[in-house]
Amino acid sequence: MFKAKVKPEVLKEIVEIIATLVDEAKFSIEKTRLVIKAVDPAHVAMVELSISKGGFEEFKADESELGVDIDKVKEVLRLAKPGDDISIEHNEERNQLVFQVGNITRRMSLVDTTGISDPKVPNLTLPVVVSVRTEELRQGIRASESVSDHIALTATSDGFEMASEGDTDSVDLKLPKDLLEELECKEEVRSLFPLDYFSNMIKAISTSTVVTMRMGNDYPVKMEFSIAGGKGEVTYLLAPRIESE
Amino acid sequence: MFKAKVKPEVLKEIVEIIATLVDEAKFSIEKTRLVIKAVDPAHVAMVELSISKGGFEEFKADESELGVDIDKVKEVLRLAKPGDDISIEHNEERNQLVFQVGNITRRMSLVDTTGISDPKVPNLTLPVVVSVRTEELRQGIRASESVSDHIALTATSDGFEMASEGDTDSVDLKLPKDLLEELECKEEVRSLFPLDYFSNMIKAISTSTVVTMRMGNDYPVKMEFSIAGGKGEVTYLLAPRIESE
Amino acid sequence: MFKAKVKPEVLKEIVEIIATLVDEAKFSIEKTRLVIKAVDPAHVAMVELSISKGGFEEFKADESELGVDIDKVKEVLRLAKPGDDISIEHNEERNQLVFQVGNITRRMSLVDTTGISDPKVPNLTLPVVVSVRTEELRQGIRASESVSDHIALTATSDGFEMASEGDTDSVDLKLPKDLLEELECKEEVRSLFPLDYFSNMIKAISTSTVVTMRMGNDYPVKMEFSIAGGKGEVTYLLAPRIESE
Repeated sequence: MFKAKVKPEVLKEIVEIIATLVDEAKFSIEKTRLVIKAVDPAHVAMVELSISKGGFEEFKADESELGVDIDKVKEVLRLAKPGDDISIEHNEERNQLVFQVGNITRRMSLVDTTGISDPKVPNLTLPVVVSVRTEELRQGIRASESVSDHIALTATSDGFEMASEGDTDSVDLKLPKDLLEELECKEEVRSLFPLDYFSNMIKAISTSTVVTMRMGNDYPVKMEFSIAGGKGEVTYLLAPRIESE
Repeated sequence: MFKAKVKPEVLKEIVEIIATLVDEAKFSIEKTRLVIKAVDPAHVAMVELSISKGGFEEFKADESELGVDIDKVKEVLRLAKPGDDISIEHNEERNQLVFQVGNITRRMSLVDTTGISDPKVPNLTLPVVVSVRTEELRQGIRASESVSDHIALTATSDGFEMASEGDTDSVDLKLPKDLLEELECKEEVRSLFPLDYFSNMIKAISTSTVVTMRMGNDYPVKMEFSIAGGKGEVTYLLAPRIESE
Repeated sequence: MFKAKVKPEVLKEIVEIIATLVDEAKFSIEKTRLVIKAVDPAHVAMVELSISKGGFEEFKADESELGVDIDKVKEVLRLAKPGDDISIEHNEERNQLVFQVGNITRRMSLVDTTGISDPKVPNLTLPVVVSVRTEELRQGIRASESVSDHIALTATSDGFEMASEGDTDSVDLKLPKDLLEELECKEEVRSLFPLDYFSNMIKAISTSTVVTMRMGNDYPVKMEFSIAGGKGEVTYLLAPRIESE
């Protein structure tokens, strides 16, 4: 059994975050929360999202797993007018998810979850913590886009830097310590990432103003932020690229 | 002789309604009104539009028929600035329609009307009347678009429903009687329509807030609404699709 | 040596004006001003732009010539937030131009100037002067776009006219003397121009409200206007088309 009511803006946050990595996702329904874990087809990035009962207007659930086509949920969101809460109910007989928005009833078949891979979040020791305003990250991405397909993230005890190097051109955004929300860094770390993944992830963050990044040297970056007005938590994990030189 | 002055917003209404079905149309000028009838090339839909002298700022006319390229009139509309009335005059010698907007004079050759088919509006007995707010119709169309290429319109004594059925998914918008402006329906009627036609027609309705639909069982739907602040009337007629099951 | 600081809106004016004709341009730096001359690859149009020291927030320069990729400067402009001045510095060792916007540093390689042709502005006697508001020119272009690929500019002692003639249609915008800012014309002159060039040039004029046009009969048109709040001057020169009839 799963029956919930949710504000469109909260459902939108969930959908946008997941849609950066996959088209179909397994929604793990627990008694007091919804958990979604997903890994992209190329196994470069991973997401773990959990949102507690309190992030919903109503929430009644037994434990269950629902395979959901994310694009179809996006279509439902387009039907919501301001103030329209969205009701979601699992129809077990028909194996359908039934959405109710205003006077509209939208029934969608569930996706078979056996084909959806279950990501194992690796155990990583990431010594450095940098908390940055999303807006600054977006600015750094915008600057890199015209120069390279990669972006290097560097933290030192003095600050945080996003940089890209092209054949003839280069660009960097330097954020000294006082422009950061938080910085824990004893010695310099640096990793290179695919810009498209990093960009899509950061662009999917709608409401959080601060992202906490956990970093190492040539190591994955973990990006943590909250959603649903603090009732939900998201962790993105992105694998590094090995630098050719 | 035909000489008129019209507000850009009124000419825009006329043009958008006609453009959903044809690129070229025959404007039948009468002494006290303008009438346009058109049928789309596939003979699936038909329009009849009439606008009285009072819908124009100025209107002087003998009876005549003008073949007009609708796209060219759209271009003239793009030249109008707020408050610019548009003057239209038939230059019989040159067989041109001459538009005047601000300091611009735009002369366009008339289209030969012999190639433009003259639709015969069929005599239909449509027992059911439903008046719906355009906004609700648009919402139903938006919901159907992701599910199917067809939309079923159903009226019962209790209300009106727009529904679409896909292979795995379905959607419906139910409007109970109290959300309708008018409902005359003794027994249930239902017809299936091509969604693209229905959608284009409804999207062309700019100012009317209410559309009166006349319906039967597996029968065409007639959609009536007013334009030009009540000085004009439009009837759209759309043929049904035969349901495969 | 070249080191300057400039408001984004001024750099944007410069870039848009040059970009209508070329992708790469030679910036001639003088002690008290910046001069850019360019001719389009088809040698149909030419631009000469000069902006004095006073159009910049800071300006320190020896004489030098810099080959600049205009598209890359456009990318830098996209990074500027309101109020962000843009610093530009020539790094002679690396042969790079270094832009600083907020916390971002963008380094771009200079383009070899030997491949960039140096336009010779011809000595023309253009007897007629017409000063027109840019907005009116834009309106005339908009009207012509749907009718022809050419636009004829005509001046008489009574006014100025922009006209286009298609196979079946025609359009003209007539501006009588009292709608012009200035008119010096003893006898009628008329020249025909390629609409795309004329349109791109006029659309690149952002802040000047008035363009001064110097004209002859079947002769190039010279268009003069100021930029950077009067601290800079631009001259566009456009070659005429020979009329086939």
